[in-house]
Amino acid sequence: MIVVMEPRAAEQRINQVVERLKSLGFEVHLSRGVEKTIIGAVGERRAEAAQAIEAMPGVEKVVPILHQFKLAGLQFKPERSVINVSGIEFGGEKVVCIAGPCAVESREQLIAVAEAAKQAGADMLRGGAFKPRTSPYSFHGLEEEGLKLLAEAREVTGLPFVTEVVNPRDIELVASYADMLQIGARNMQNFTLLREVGASGKPVILKRGLSATIEEWLNAAEYIISAGNWNVILCERGIRTFETFTRNTLDVSAIPAVKSLSHLPIIADPSHATGKSKLVPAVALAAVAAGADGLLIEVHPCPSEALSDGPQSLTPAEFKSLMTELRPIAAAVGRLL
Amino acid sequence: MIVVMEPRAAEQRINQVVERLKSLGFEVHLSRGVEKTIIGAVGERRAEAAQAIEAMPGVEKVVPILHQFKLAGLQFKPERSVINVSGIEFGGEKVVCIAGPCAVESREQLIAVAEAAKQAGADMLRGGAFKPRTSPYSFHGLEEEGLKLLAEAREVTGLPFVTEVVNPRDIELVASYADMLQIGARNMQNFTLLREVGASGKPVILKRGLSATIEEWLNAAEYIISAGNWNVILCERGIRTFETFTRNTLDVSAIPAVKSLSHLPIIADPSHATGKSKLVPAVALAAVAAGADGLLIEVHPCPSEALSDGPQSLTPAEFKSLMTELRPIAAAVGRLL
Amino acid sequence: MIVVMEPRAAEQRINQVVERLKSLGFEVHLSRGVEKTIIGAVGERRAEAAQAIEAMPGVEKVVPILHQFKLAGLQFKPERSVINVSGIEFGGEKVVCIAGPCAVESREQLIAVAEAAKQAGADMLRGGAFKPRTSPYSFHGLEEEGLKLLAEAREVTGLPFVTEVVNPRDIELVASYADMLQIGARNMQNFTLLREVGASGKPVILKRGLSATIEEWLNAAEYIISAGNWNVILCERGIRTFETFTRNTLDVSAIPAVKSLSHLPIIADPSHATGKSKLVPAVALAAVAAGADGLLIEVHPCPSEALSDGPQSLTPAEFKSLMTELRPIAAAVGRLL
Amino acid sequence: MIVVMEPRAAEQRINQVVERLKSLGFEVHLSRGVEKTIIGAVGERRAEAAQAIEAMPGVEKVVPILHQFKLAGLQFKPERSVINVSGIEFGGEKVVCIAGPCAVESREQLIAVAEAAKQAGADMLRGGAFKPRTSPYSFHGLEEEGLKLLAEAREVTGLPFVTEVVNPRDIELVASYADMLQIGARNMQNFTLLREVGASGKPVILKRGLSATIEEWLNAAEYIISAGNWNVILCERGIRTFETFTRNTLDVSAIPAVKSLSHLPIIADPSHATGKSKLVPAVALAAVAAGADGLLIEVHPCPSEALSDGPQSLTPAEFKSLMTELRPIAAAVGRLL
Repeated sequence: MIVVMEPRAAEQRINQVVERLKSLGFEVHLSRGVEKTIIGAVGERRAEAAQAIEAMPGVEKVVPILHQFKLAGLQFKPERSVINVSGIEFGGEKVVCIAGPCAVESREQLIAVAEAAKQAGADMLRGGAFKPRTSPYSFHGLEEEGLKLLAEAREVTGLPFVTEVVNPRDIELVASYADMLQIGARNMQNFTLLREVGASGKPVILKRGLSATIEEWLNAAEYIISAGNWNVILCERGIRTFETFTRNTLDVSAIPAVKSLSHLPIIADPSHATGKSKLVPAVALAAVAAGADGLLIEVHPCPSEALSDGPQSLTPAEFKSLMTELRPIAAAVGRLL
Repeated sequence: MIVVMEPRAAEQRINQVVERLKSLGFEVHLSRGVEKTIIGAVGERRAEAAQAIEAMPGVEKVVPILHQFKLAGLQFKPERSVINVSGIEFGGEKVVCIAGPCAVESREQLIAVAEAAKQAGADMLRGGAFKPRTSPYSFHGLEEEGLKLLAEAREVTGLPFVTEVVNPRDIELVASYADMLQIGARNMQNFTLLREVGASGKPVILKRGLSATIEEWLNAAEYIISAGNWNVILCERGIRTFETFTRNTLDVSAIPAVKSLSHLPIIADPSHATGKSKLVPAVALAAVAAGADGLLIEVHPCPSEALSDGPQSLTPAEFKSLMTELRPIAAAVGRLL
Repeated sequence: MIVVMEPRAAEQRINQVVERLKSLGFEVHLSRGVEKTIIGAVGERRAEAAQAIEAMPGVEKVVPILHQFKLAGLQFKPERSVINVSGIEFGGEKVVCIAGPCAVESREQLIAVAEAAKQAGADMLRGGAFKPRTSPYSFHGLEEEGLKLLAEAREVTGLPFVTEVVNPRDIELVASYADMLQIGARNMQNFTLLREVGASGKPVILKRGLSATIEEWLNAAEYIISAGNWNVILCERGIRTFETFTRNTLDVSAIPAVKSLSHLPIIADPSHATGKSKLVPAVALAAVAAGADGLLIEVHPCPSEALSDGPQSLTPAEFKSLMTELRPIAAAVGRLL
Repeated sequence: MIVVMEPRAAEQRINQVVERLKSLGFEVHLSRGVEKTIIGAVGERRAEAAQAIEAMPGVEKVVPILHQFKLAGLQFKPERSVINVSGIEFGGEKVVCIAGPCAVESREQLIAVAEAAKQAGADMLRGGAFKPRTSPYSFHGLEEEGLKLLAEAREVTGLPFVTEVVNPRDIELVASYADMLQIGARNMQNFTLLREVGASGKPVILKRGLSATIEEWLNAAEYIISAGNWNVILCERGIRTFETFTRNTLDVSAIPAVKSLSHLPIIADPSHATGKSKLVPAVALAAVAAGADGLLIEVHPCPSEALSDGPQSLTPAEFKSLMTELRPIAAAVGRLL
């Protein structure tokens, strides 16, 4: 880490910082400029120590140099992770397509989507049984009944499924049905949930928080991995910006950025990112072109009657057409789909 | 709600939307313009229905008119709420000052701060026993041991205390010690936690999420109230913007904005908002001038040795001096402090 | 436009708004709900009138329904614009590649890049002669000398060139050399410059402002078109968000979004969007997959010695390799490159 | 500046960076860690050089340490600037209140506001004659006629006035009438305008750009000062965030932050920041409490008929009442008003 002293900081204050750093076990290098003195501290094992030094007299700021995450980093594990979820590989040659409704609403709805998804070439099914909703008065999902329907849809189509978990107390229940868990954007820094999903060992999709930096997102993954679960797949689902035409703003550069920092697979969710079904195909193509290892796409048999996220859901026919458009893009970047 | 049809939408599509709205129980009013037809739908009891209509053919967008929150709204309860926490009133004439360290680190640290806070005129003590931290490798608090120390500090000083709860499973434990619970910014949309804190009936400080709109924040409060707990105090603690000089950006206009929408008291946390102790006093004064019902301020006996948030913590002497500066501001807006 | 009255607004206030709207020539439709009355006003010829009504007593808010831009809109001109710049067509089948250094630094530098760009298959050359720089002490370009070098590079390679204009007083000079003008992100709302570039009739690349909404960007295009110049090409170059790993955040969804609102061609600038050369290729591929009509890419013979934007510049070899990767993506979306 | 090398960068690459830094005249200090090597480069006279080094092989990032601005900095001029504008001092003991309509619309409107402002205790008058507007079809001001009316209002009331300049070609004209120029938020990085306003020597209010960092804002001030004009007053007018309830978000912490970095006076514009007249008073009080040296407030005799910014304009009566509320706040922070 780097400690930047205030302009013309007194010698005594520089010495105090140097002594403090040494007492914390850092090796210290001084660079004295005309205006500012900079102290390089090598060996930053203790992030807390680093932060607090900023409060010492004469210190202007502390600039951390190392990432806080370790196990999630490419430096710790230089080969890319390939994560197997009931026979489906994330991070391999194939771009994995996960399709399904925002929420499981009924047997008819779910089976219709699952069969259409299967027929169009999807690899996995998605569907919410426990729905985190902004308002307490919105539909919150069918809960265990929804999990049973998802299991039935898997039976019928052979597609494994992923579903969101929002409460640490439900992890065991959800994991007993699902092939993969999902941690939603609003829970990306629900550290209790992260740790317990980590302990469960179940593969997990970790969505990026609405205003999470890439560094914070990888720190959230670190929680899961450090609890013993290496089966983490990141999902870029749009960040919050000032733009109001779209629901969120898909940060497409996060895909190569994450790949430059981490070995974990990364997929994209163009449905939540845009909030508008007509924008989903172009953004899905973009994500695959940028190197996404998979897509998470909302499909509903009748979007205008969906209990949640109708405006961003594709019809089965639109999804099928998107799958056809995606294949040459995947091929163009050396992938299958 | 308003349904805006696409330019020159076909008559048939307009009729379909009208029929759908009527079948959902809405009263419908048509405004036909040269370019666009607008459909006013009165009686929006079902927010889900509203959203899904945006997916109907010919619909450009749906503009909701009513807020989703009800119980948190000024319209439901026009008189301002005054919330009593162990004898301290939030939302009354007095501006409530809550002071203490980010994290409870030791008996010595906590008692020192508590006594200094008391002596400077603080009304309540704060201190984290369960700390949500960005990295799994940071200090996560003393847990129940921290709660015991807080209770001891209360014993010594007479100051009631507030402390954060991050796990639904800990609510009972934390509530058995604390006078008031805190839901942190990262958990503002942890709906499980909101509902269970609601069920506990314990007074709660609900911090605004890093990228939460005021509407979403009030919806989060609605979760707690609709679970039966009206003792909700909102806390503006800075939102995430592009500015990097400060840790976050205190949205001072949220104070009067919330007061124009809700009857709930609102306090401000200048420590997390700025991330820099030297900016805390000016921002604290601003919050009180804008009408804040209280302040939440981090104080540490030795900020440069704090295990978390050192750079934004005031020393006891700085806090005392701030209290002196705050009094005439409170008086200027007709409040006590 | 829609006027939303405050909850339980008095009859008299509703009538005042209705009368005011009628006096401004609007046709008025009332929707009375239990909580709120909504007034639909059809015929919004006067945007100012709309805004000011929000200040009338009893009015909660005014929701505009129509876009402010007209000529830039797909509704005014439903067929896509194809813009010819010295023989190069933007908005046609071909994805146009514009390459070159951030700033023209010397004859050697520019000719080297121009020849490499030509050889790799670029269609046009870019290079700054007048550079808007954040600091007054940075390199601000070679000015007319730079324009002469660009003209010479065009002579040598046959590639037409685009260059930025920052001062209304320089438009004539720049237009006398360049094939196309560029308005940079920081000048997107420099309305004087927009109008005068409009009057010049010269084709122009209009970059999106750092925090401009899509609506504001199209309004900026409207300035140019309404001054008589239909040759406007939009350029998405990244918006400002809280993410700091990248210089900006490319809003890839803006590409299909703009195409759903406007007939104007849209290109992307992955260099400024990411600020990191290693992220440029993935983001360039994404932009083309999303439907971009062209790319603007910074290439420098020796990025580590560039006088500006070195870290985001590709070497000629990297650019050539990117062109090879782009071709199958363009083909996959039915385009040439 | 600090050069952070990639993890395990080869010795040869470290040496290349060291040599390059030395050749640019920097003094170099190496800190070798187990994971990363950090190179401190002292004497950063050339910002461009710093940036380009990030493009060298093996370099992860370059962290600048010094601010780019010099003359605007507290380090260059440690005593606070007091700027005299026709007898009114900005940065002195008095909090300066500038009031007036967004746009000059007519003689009647302007004189009415000017007299009301004067009577309520305002120190200066504001009013737009050249209006930058998002849409080309909006009202763009009365131009020179507006300047004449402002001069007349000054004559009548004795209040000096400030008005915006948007075109370098108009500076001389505007300066011949006005006591002070204003550079609007959208022109904060219109470097041509900055330099020419700098050359004019006229006092100037420099508004913060919608998405400008404090560093960029001070760099913009540096343009004006380095062109010879030290009479720069900064104005915080709200930044763009995701919040939509308010027009912008007033960054109240920017007030003490600027004061910790620069000697220039800083005022606040609660009208543009909030966009809602009912929020203006609370935010105005907050700004003064935070240390603002003045306020810029929109006042209109009949906001609901204003040609621009009606919803955020106070009536003369509301302004008078605000002035009464402001005085004790100013007194509480040791200022006059």
